Amino acid sequence: MGKAERKKVIIDTDPGIDDAMAIFVALNSPEIEVIGLTTIYGNVYTELATKNALHLLEIAGRTDIPVAEGSHVTILKGTKLRIADFVHGSDGLGNQNFPPPKGKAIDESAATFIVEKAKQFAGEVTVVALGPLTNIALAMELDPEFSKTIGQIIILGGAFSVNGNVNPAAEANIFGDPDAADIVFTSGADILTVGLNVTHQVIFTDADFEKLTQSKGKLAQYLSNILGIYFSYHHDAYGTQGVYLHDPTALLAAVDPSLLTYTEGVIRVQTSGITRGMTVLDNTRKTYGEVTEWSNKPTVKIAVTVDAPAILRIVMERLVNS
Amino acid sequence: MGKAERKKVIIDTDPGIDDAMAIFVALNSPEIEVIGLTTIYGNVYTELATKNALHLLEIAGRTDIPVAEGSHVTILKGTKLRIADFVHGSDGLGNQNFPPPKGKAIDESAATFIVEKAKQFAGEVTVVALGPLTNIALAMELDPEFSKTIGQIIILGGAFSVNGNVNPAAEANIFGDPDAADIVFTSGADILTVGLNVTHQVIFTDADFEKLTQSKGKLAQYLSNILGIYFSYHHDAYGTQGVYLHDPTALLAAVDPSLLTYTEGVIRVQTSGITRGMTVLDNTRKTYGEVTEWSNKPTVKIAVTVDAPAILRIVMERLVNS
Repeated sequence: MGKAERKKVIIDTDPGIDDAMAIFVALNSPEIEVIGLTTIYGNVYTELATKNALHLLEIAGRTDIPVAEGSHVTILKGTKLRIADFVHGSDGLGNQNFPPPKGKAIDESAATFIVEKAKQFAGEVTVVALGPLTNIALAMELDPEFSKTIGQIIILGGAFSVNGNVNPAAEANIFGDPDAADIVFTSGADILTVGLNVTHQVIFTDADFEKLTQSKGKLAQYLSNILGIYFSYHHDAYGTQGVYLHDPTALLAAVDPSLLTYTEGVIRVQTSGITRGMTVLDNTRKTYGEVTEWSNKPTVKIAVTVDAPAILRIVMERLVNS
Repeated sequence: MGKAERKKVIIDTDPGIDDAMAIFVALNSPEIEVIGLTTIYGNVYTELATKNALHLLEIAGRTDIPVAEGSHVTILKGTKLRIADFVHGSDGLGNQNFPPPKGKAIDESAATFIVEKAKQFAGEVTVVALGPLTNIALAMELDPEFSKTIGQIIILGGAFSVNGNVNPAAEANIFGDPDAADIVFTSGADILTVGLNVTHQVIFTDADFEKLTQSKGKLAQYLSNILGIYFSYHHDAYGTQGVYLHDPTALLAAVDPSLLTYTEGVIRVQTSGITRGMTVLDNTRKTYGEVTEWSNKPTVKIAVTVDAPAILRIVMERLVNS
């Protein structure tokens, strides 16, 4: 596949252990060209997300890829950030005491970088958003045409017909900035979202971990070292003998959309109260008598099923010998 | 079955066409003894609900059963009521211009009546709540021991893993008074709730309607006359060739609980914002790291599956020759 034919991808990320897996899978996916990483708070604070993004590109030998730092705060300022250091370690990468990266982020902000790339390659850029959606909502505020110039936005976020992972109502990325998420979901852009109902089907098991550990590949070895804390968290919180591959699954939706099936409907996000961060999909066929908050809003695509064995096979192929 | 062995049931109701069906089924169910009707707004305003309850008992020749009028307002006063006259007709009973009832409601309020009956027959009374939960929440405010003295509360309400019928988030009865519903669901009483995910499985078809129409029974004839508008609404709103038997299904859960299967978990109700009236069930096995709004709350039972053919058969048996 020639470089010109590869899908241009920006990964908006808060690395994060499964972010690291997704980034390495992306760099080893010939179907896509990673044209930048943009950073956001979530698994760690934004400043650390930027350091980790630079560090991961240095580990992978891909310092040619620019990193743009994203927002340090939610789109409506003043919301206390929820940082998932109890899942990923206080450094976001399994508490391995890595040295600081040598490189630096570019001067542009994440939102500016995304807007400019979407303009430069109109209709050709896919953003894979692996954290709260602040940067994407800011891009929409910055450029009213962004929803049209961006090719597709693939979101890891939401929980459809299942409980959330922050609390029974909310999934972590949407909970991180519900106001931004509601802006993005109702923007009219070409959006595909991959929620917990799908990512909880994709379990990287203890046996898979063993296979990764035994690989001599540099990235495989690196991931083997950082994955321990992520396994411990899953064992304690879910009782699973394995970890959910949230971010790699969303990334692979960009690589090969046929790995998942989709439904379509309007998503609104509750922004206050006990269900703050809840994603509610209108997928009924009912004609409501009244105008609802879902009426006359653009639809988005929502992943419904996933070929989990295929996802696991591809992730393993692209990590084990690299 | 001797009268002493029959389950004592109070029906809290906002008649309502499917309320009328449920009340008639109840009166023809030897397994239960209807010891009172209490009224609430919902399908109609409370005052009209009281008139309709008295009228239905007169039609059925059961003026021995007391009617207690319930609240005219939501538990937090000032909320505008949502009245579903577009589903049931402006009179709540298919716009048939029935004469006013001869009887009157008793002097006690619905909440007082329910509290007193629960005390009088401690642990033996089941309330079947077919409308918004204001009266039940008021009973809980009136008597702090009510959750223990009441036998069971069976609620027609909520939407679990499916869209609502007021809007994609909310089911009508819970939407009618979300604050009351949250009080009731978290009260610690023995609660069983039957939501849209179950009642939308129970469709009384055009063919069933035809059978009812051809019956010479007085109640069957009465229902045949009022059901027209309810069929029209379902056809327009849902495209179904039939109507959902919401209230009769919840009533039959009191008659024979084995007609349904159940799960158990904590339900909280969102009381504001675009998902106001949404019921969120915590049925995950996740151990959340943080204390959530669902933590340490009492669980309730939630209907999951229903033997719809059996429900339809029993409803028909008990209405067609009566």
